[in-house]
Amino acid sequence: MTHLEGRLSVQAVMEAGRRTIEKLLVSNTANEEKLEEVLKAARERNIPVQRVASEELDAIAHAKTHGGLLALCEPRRPDGEAELDAVLARERSPLMLLLEGVDDARDFGSVLRSGEALGVHAVLLRKREWDFDETDVMRSSSGAFERLCIVRFDHEDGLVERMKTRGLAVLACVPNVMGTVFDQELATPVVIAVGGEKRGLSGTLRAKCTGFMRIPMKAGSTSLTMRDAVAVVLGEAMRQRTLPRR
Amino acid sequence: MTHLEGRLSVQAVMEAGRRTIEKLLVSNTANEEKLEEVLKAARERNIPVQRVASEELDAIAHAKTHGGLLALCEPRRPDGEAELDAVLARERSPLMLLLEGVDDARDFGSVLRSGEALGVHAVLLRKREWDFDETDVMRSSSGAFERLCIVRFDHEDGLVERMKTRGLAVLACVPNVMGTVFDQELATPVVIAVGGEKRGLSGTLRAKCTGFMRIPMKAGSTSLTMRDAVAVVLGEAMRQRTLPRR
Repeated sequence: MTHLEGRLSVQAVMEAGRRTIEKLLVSNTANEEKLEEVLKAARERNIPVQRVASEELDAIAHAKTHGGLLALCEPRRPDGEAELDAVLARERSPLMLLLEGVDDARDFGSVLRSGEALGVHAVLLRKREWDFDETDVMRSSSGAFERLCIVRFDHEDGLVERMKTRGLAVLACVPNVMGTVFDQELATPVVIAVGGEKRGLSGTLRAKCTGFMRIPMKAGSTSLTMRDAVAVVLGEAMRQRTLPRR
Repeated sequence: MTHLEGRLSVQAVMEAGRRTIEKLLVSNTANEEKLEEVLKAARERNIPVQRVASEELDAIAHAKTHGGLLALCEPRRPDGEAELDAVLARERSPLMLLLEGVDDARDFGSVLRSGEALGVHAVLLRKREWDFDETDVMRSSSGAFERLCIVRFDHEDGLVERMKTRGLAVLACVPNVMGTVFDQELATPVVIAVGGEKRGLSGTLRAKCTGFMRIPMKAGSTSLTMRDAVAVVLGEAMRQRTLPRR
């Protein structure tokens, strides 16, 4: 059992319909007007609503931005390869994001949020990294954690190789290579791989990549965090994918 | 008096030379080898070094990433208009970042870090927003907080107007306008204005802007945070500024 915090998270889970909400907890000091819509949706879905003291709710919550609403629900299961196949069948030019070295729930949530906004169709995450505070990921993702297809992979399971067989380039965002993200073709089917700032992408993953690209940076400055690097490279993918006359 | 955490922050302050370090606190469990260089630099600068119990150091520190080193020092003063003039005199094509609605020290630090890496020469911050936990800003900025020119402005002080007189465009990154950041000229002298996610840019600031641009986003997704929006637009500025044959 896990919990969701705030209206946005709860609505995202109801709308996505991928997991069951056991019950809602509403603080006795909550702004009922702001919660009207979500409480109506809960009634329609026969989700019990329990009124609790605001101190009780605060004691469970991880952050202060819940607006008087929590939901108890089952954890979010990772998507399977069937869901990934559905993405490949649906999208004319799939854009996937592969992450290695995720070490912060809030940043991971923000990566999912900007990933969704900038057109990512699926996220591939190392199996052992599916180990985060779901409540925090969900909150900072603004619901993208629930809406995006998120699949786990491992070096041995051949998933990355199968993406290549299906026609996707696998491009690693790394420092110290000649070509930049601005020279790379990102409008065609592609998996963009970004590593954490501590260790970067593993050698095993790099060996599977079909290309490498760096983000140009001012000499003498420190590297970008994973989250900021993802925003830059996905911004460039969005630019290429929205160019007129393609 | 404020304090710095970790080797990177302390070295950045020593190298920038804009403020005095009163003394270093080194934990009795610190990895002395890793601190060798910074302790040598402290000796050269006659900065006292005090050994303390690791518990004492942890009690002062805000985060766990200090590596056994803190420094007590004076707060970082904002830069004045003289420093901004020096930037304008030095840079062929100045790139400035104007922020309104900064509400998180860690994200502000990260914005400075990616700003520096992506070629920003100066940051303009609303006067009343110079009110953050400096230790946290410094740590997450990887020292960029110390190295960058950061100037405070107010709606009444005419600073933004003076930037226009000096030949800089002032471009606001906002939703719901026709043109995108990818259509805008960002390689010429420019102030890029980005607002916080709660309220966006103020009307007063917008009224001073010479142009508006949006980041294209997938329909139905939530907006980007200030930090992620900054990374996208500065990535595009970097692309334009590193294009061959300009």
